[in-house]
Amino acid sequence: MVTQLDHEDVTSTRTNFSNQVHLYTFDSLPLQRGGQFGPVTVAYETWGKLNAEGNNAVLITHALTGSPHAHDAESPDDTKVAWWNPLIGPGRFFDTSRYFVICSNVLGSCYGSTGPSSIDPNTGQPYGMRFPVITIRDMVETQRRLIEYLGVSQLHMVAGGSIGGQQALEWAVAHPELVENVIVVAATAALTAQAIAFSEVGRQAILADPRWQGGDYLPGQGPNAGLSIARMLAMITYQSEEGMELRFARQPARKQNMTAPSGFTDLSKRFDVEGYLYYQGESLVKRFDANSYLYISRAMDLYDVSEEYPSIEDALSRLRSKALFIGIRSDFLFPAARVRWLADQARAAGSDAIYAELDSPHGHDAFLKEWKQMTATLNLIKE
Amino acid sequence: MVTQLDHEDVTSTRTNFSNQVHLYTFDSLPLQRGGQFGPVTVAYETWGKLNAEGNNAVLITHALTGSPHAHDAESPDDTKVAWWNPLIGPGRFFDTSRYFVICSNVLGSCYGSTGPSSIDPNTGQPYGMRFPVITIRDMVETQRRLIEYLGVSQLHMVAGGSIGGQQALEWAVAHPELVENVIVVAATAALTAQAIAFSEVGRQAILADPRWQGGDYLPGQGPNAGLSIARMLAMITYQSEEGMELRFARQPARKQNMTAPSGFTDLSKRFDVEGYLYYQGESLVKRFDANSYLYISRAMDLYDVSEEYPSIEDALSRLRSKALFIGIRSDFLFPAARVRWLADQARAAGSDAIYAELDSPHGHDAFLKEWKQMTATLNLIKE
Repeated sequence: MVTQLDHEDVTSTRTNFSNQVHLYTFDSLPLQRGGQFGPVTVAYETWGKLNAEGNNAVLITHALTGSPHAHDAESPDDTKVAWWNPLIGPGRFFDTSRYFVICSNVLGSCYGSTGPSSIDPNTGQPYGMRFPVITIRDMVETQRRLIEYLGVSQLHMVAGGSIGGQQALEWAVAHPELVENVIVVAATAALTAQAIAFSEVGRQAILADPRWQGGDYLPGQGPNAGLSIARMLAMITYQSEEGMELRFARQPARKQNMTAPSGFTDLSKRFDVEGYLYYQGESLVKRFDANSYLYISRAMDLYDVSEEYPSIEDALSRLRSKALFIGIRSDFLFPAARVRWLADQARAAGSDAIYAELDSPHGHDAFLKEWKQMTATLNLIKE
Repeated sequence: MVTQLDHEDVTSTRTNFSNQVHLYTFDSLPLQRGGQFGPVTVAYETWGKLNAEGNNAVLITHALTGSPHAHDAESPDDTKVAWWNPLIGPGRFFDTSRYFVICSNVLGSCYGSTGPSSIDPNTGQPYGMRFPVITIRDMVETQRRLIEYLGVSQLHMVAGGSIGGQQALEWAVAHPELVENVIVVAATAALTAQAIAFSEVGRQAILADPRWQGGDYLPGQGPNAGLSIARMLAMITYQSEEGMELRFARQPARKQNMTAPSGFTDLSKRFDVEGYLYYQGESLVKRFDANSYLYISRAMDLYDVSEEYPSIEDALSRLRSKALFIGIRSDFLFPAARVRWLADQARAAGSDAIYAELDSPHGHDAFLKEWKQMTATLNLIKE
């Protein structure tokens, strides 16, 4: 059923990857919300080598606007070029001298995998909003096809944070026999109403931008202001009150050359936090597709580990992996108390699950910043 | 210097007030950020009678999108028709049989006081963004002109929540000799970086709406989508994770007839919290002016009680009022810990200040909902 394409570099993505990005395409994917969708291309990177038994693979799952470039073998110490760079490499927690580490771009994204900006072969035009509603389970199913293609017989570990954590959890519940260890970072059984609400405000900012054009914008001519506003809001939810006070407080803007999404700003002085948010908005617009943002953020909202099971206990009783759940003290998007609750539920359902917490003021994004604490905490799964 | 106009009904405001709204206009106001501005009209309502000494007046100060209609004498038990209705009236905390209770619409608003939608007499056109940057102090100074005109010699009390709390605090610091008691509810010495950030995201949504037209939109043809999105976001910050879980959790939308600001929605199912936010956005658009929203929310961000004083201690050492600071346990816009800190600072600076906390899951808006707790807590100032 699957079609094998040659591995090849993806040169069209908007970040400069120094590693090779490979592509794998298969014909059709049954979607959780119904129907078949295809062809599906998966962009992925790997580090290390798969052993003969095919059981030393580690799957790393990325967050909303993440890419498969979790590690940069050429600049392994640069935290800006790859999103989990300091955790991956020879001798590091994700030890590429022992494990075959895989990170694939999620279905729906714009870093090489099939998403709304991909060309629909039936029309020759980008899918836009004709792209189907996708779920975390669909992302996982896409990854399952990929590891099968790569010859992986069992995953030594699946690990990810945020939406990546939802994927890791879904992996361990949907395919318990395939996952030896699972690490769920800053993710919960399901989003809170508050988190869904933030998510929807961001999407409405995109959808209300007249340049969105019902999703049929031309490349580079999309809803930049809307996407930028959505990102500004998201960046607040990825931090914390405490972290933002430490970093910005009420300081005046240190740089004045940032442009606000609307182009209008500055009723009286500009605060530093505002310039920072403009910059974050602008940066995302340069690298990410607005429709992908809509679809992936919605998959995050829709995710509920108990969906299609009689109860969450039933869902979690399927777990066979050793499980590490990591919460972040100051995270308000995926609150630590809810991560802990999930770990407790997993243990109550018979799972070998532990909970640990990052003591960080940096909110949700701490899993992309607190390298020492992350390494120490990840290692708890080996004990 | 002041020009006295006849009291008259304001029939042009967009809510149906059953009480009389009065207008007072004066020629010119020196602004905190420089320059003179005028003429300034203040819309206000009063309940009860001023005594001969002019010292039984209570000033109630409203929040961002509030109006002078704090109480409805015809429907005194209806919590929907007036924003502090159950707290005001004969025998209630703000006892209209003893006190002359005043609530005036803030400078910059659209409920009768001069704001961006008012006609600039020099051009015959609405001010739009030619309206000057205003501050909490300017609002207070406008109120001071009003009470002088009304014959008030001393304020028995100033009380308000949120931006109204900032005004109450500013009153007690700027005019200590005029304020016998002050009640600051859910307001802090200055906004956090996080709160400024939320505020700016909302403003960018308005400013990025092409119907904003640089602020020169025609009445009813303004940036409805942008204002609606700003309101959706604000409504999240007025609640709490806990409160939204109690109210919405992950329930599907109970009503499907709400329209999203963009007109686009529903990637898969709609959550109840989304329908609720659409409704809140739509409701605000019907009653509030987008430019007023920009100016008043900015005044909130800019407020810092210590501005123009050597330190916050210097600012607070000016207090002569008996002061009650009320925080709300689940408030994350004006966190309880910061309200408590402000009370502690006031006491350390020699003020007769006490702190009390509403134990409510309803977040910032608890001061507009928790009537029993509010009444009990307000009464602490009498002890």
